[in-house]
Amino acid sequence: MRGAVMYAPGDVRVEDREDPAIIEPTDAIIRLAATCICGSDLWPYRGVDTLDGPTPMGHEYAGIVEQAGSEVRNIKPGDFVIGSFFASDNTCEICRAGYQTSCVHRQLVGGAQAQYLRVPLADGTLVATPGRPDADLVPGLLAASDVLGTGWFGAVAAQAGPGKTVAVVGDGAVGVLAVLAARQLGAERIIAMSRHEPRQKLALEFGATDIVTERSDQGVAAIKHLTGGLGAHSVIEAVGTQESMMQAIRSARPGGHVGYVGVAHDVQLPGQELFFSHVHLHGGPAPVRQYLSRLIDLIWNRAIDPGKAFDLTLPLDQAAEGYQAMDQRRATKVLLRP
Amino acid sequence: MRGAVMYAPGDVRVEDREDPAIIEPTDAIIRLAATCICGSDLWPYRGVDTLDGPTPMGHEYAGIVEQAGSEVRNIKPGDFVIGSFFASDNTCEICRAGYQTSCVHRQLVGGAQAQYLRVPLADGTLVATPGRPDADLVPGLLAASDVLGTGWFGAVAAQAGPGKTVAVVGDGAVGVLAVLAARQLGAERIIAMSRHEPRQKLALEFGATDIVTERSDQGVAAIKHLTGGLGAHSVIEAVGTQESMMQAIRSARPGGHVGYVGVAHDVQLPGQELFFSHVHLHGGPAPVRQYLSRLIDLIWNRAIDPGKAFDLTLPLDQAAEGYQAMDQRRATKVLLRP
Repeated sequence: MRGAVMYAPGDVRVEDREDPAIIEPTDAIIRLAATCICGSDLWPYRGVDTLDGPTPMGHEYAGIVEQAGSEVRNIKPGDFVIGSFFASDNTCEICRAGYQTSCVHRQLVGGAQAQYLRVPLADGTLVATPGRPDADLVPGLLAASDVLGTGWFGAVAAQAGPGKTVAVVGDGAVGVLAVLAARQLGAERIIAMSRHEPRQKLALEFGATDIVTERSDQGVAAIKHLTGGLGAHSVIEAVGTQESMMQAIRSARPGGHVGYVGVAHDVQLPGQELFFSHVHLHGGPAPVRQYLSRLIDLIWNRAIDPGKAFDLTLPLDQAAEGYQAMDQRRATKVLLRP
Repeated sequence: MRGAVMYAPGDVRVEDREDPAIIEPTDAIIRLAATCICGSDLWPYRGVDTLDGPTPMGHEYAGIVEQAGSEVRNIKPGDFVIGSFFASDNTCEICRAGYQTSCVHRQLVGGAQAQYLRVPLADGTLVATPGRPDADLVPGLLAASDVLGTGWFGAVAAQAGPGKTVAVVGDGAVGVLAVLAARQLGAERIIAMSRHEPRQKLALEFGATDIVTERSDQGVAAIKHLTGGLGAHSVIEAVGTQESMMQAIRSARPGGHVGYVGVAHDVQLPGQELFFSHVHLHGGPAPVRQYLSRLIDLIWNRAIDPGKAFDLTLPLDQAAEGYQAMDQRRATKVLLRP
């Protein structure tokens, strides 16, 4: 099969890789209908994260079950399924508490930018759609695999909901989908922090009520100005840098909630400032599995269209161009067709 | 009147100070029935926090209203009242959300280690007891002013409650009273982390079910061992150092809650570890006002006796000896009789 492999920063190649096979009886093999490039794939692409040799890339996936291991019960060949970047048993105490990405048996899923993918713990990990999706639903269903689920977790962690003013730091795909999530969760006012016109437009389409173009201290001041000097009830952090984390914490009112889903890089939170900020802080790798059924339902019934977050679609063989487009900010989120 | 003043690290003197007077019509003057020395008073005493000149000390107080400003409505001279270290209006949006220590009009109360005290925003800040308390209730009522209220907030922030295993990092007065709070909130299992026999005893008396004597990595391992490898649902941090914060975060299970009430000193939280820990983090200066009515009720009805946290009682004039005893760990918490 064909699959994308990163050899070094800036060096992604699509090449022939061995077809995946069932290893454990709880595995499934899926044939990908669509896959994509994640903002977090840019960390090694930019040399911020180091690679341990050539690495098959991709962890977002939606597709058709090709083969199921002998112990797989919940899904069967032919099902259209979606899963998350961490495989989880969905039965342990941590999973049952809703933290499937910290499942005691979790396994990182990798190499999804390919034609086929082995998914461990298939019963716990994969959720089937009600039937074969129409082609126009596939991007949205793929988004549920990570980027939508991550934005959703950010909104939940920030306790976005009725009566709340929500600020979103970061206008990447996760950020704009966090706007969509906050809207679905019933937030009253949603402030998207964005300097890029196309992303502002998408944020507004997804339910943002206000746009703040300032960043850092000026961004915080703008949020305070819009919230009677108090700060937002809920702030979603979707970047992962020191600046964005501090911007998020400082944009929240005392007693407010910061949900952070940007993978933290070189972030150190000053204890004393955090102490006196009085914010709630929660985040981490989104337990997408917890939300998958609900997200699939919303997409299937066309209540939401998170597929709009993809602004470039390429054949899998042009994955390198997809990485470049995202790295150079010519694209926010690239969908790859295997 | 007599009052304690800190001149420099290690130098506390009780001397004649000017009697406080009503300044704003919303002020009240109270005659202290009891006051005490806080663990946080040791930061400047040990030179960790710097003083801005000679400083009247103390922020924990219970006593009788001597005089009320012309705009004070809720309390009257003769009432026995308790308040918190931050005066608050208790009407602003932040107060109404339960974060009175971040009230938009908050004022730090200082100089309570004295015979009389001016309390600003008396209507919002002070809560009267149902009548004049019996003498044996006074220490407990004084504890409600800060150390019990702070332990309580830690337990609430850590979401201690039915079915939960709670770990408490720190066996000072706040730590042992956090144990009491977790018990009152219905926690199933309460693990006190303590190496000091008298404090272990008090923790057990307040409701701890387990004692862990190890600290740091060994302490974390012991908590994991007691919780099926997962960590505690709720961890209360009541120290404020880098070591104690990391011990607290690492002792919590994914999805668990860390409530931190130790005033953070030189703490830097590593963003990536926090991200992957999946914990909820909440804390800060305890909004004691939120809990005062409930705490007074529990103490008044003798359902709890937080006064036991005081293990040394001295006349106000011997405040210097009280500081020394706490600094040298000869006493956990010193009550001063004005």
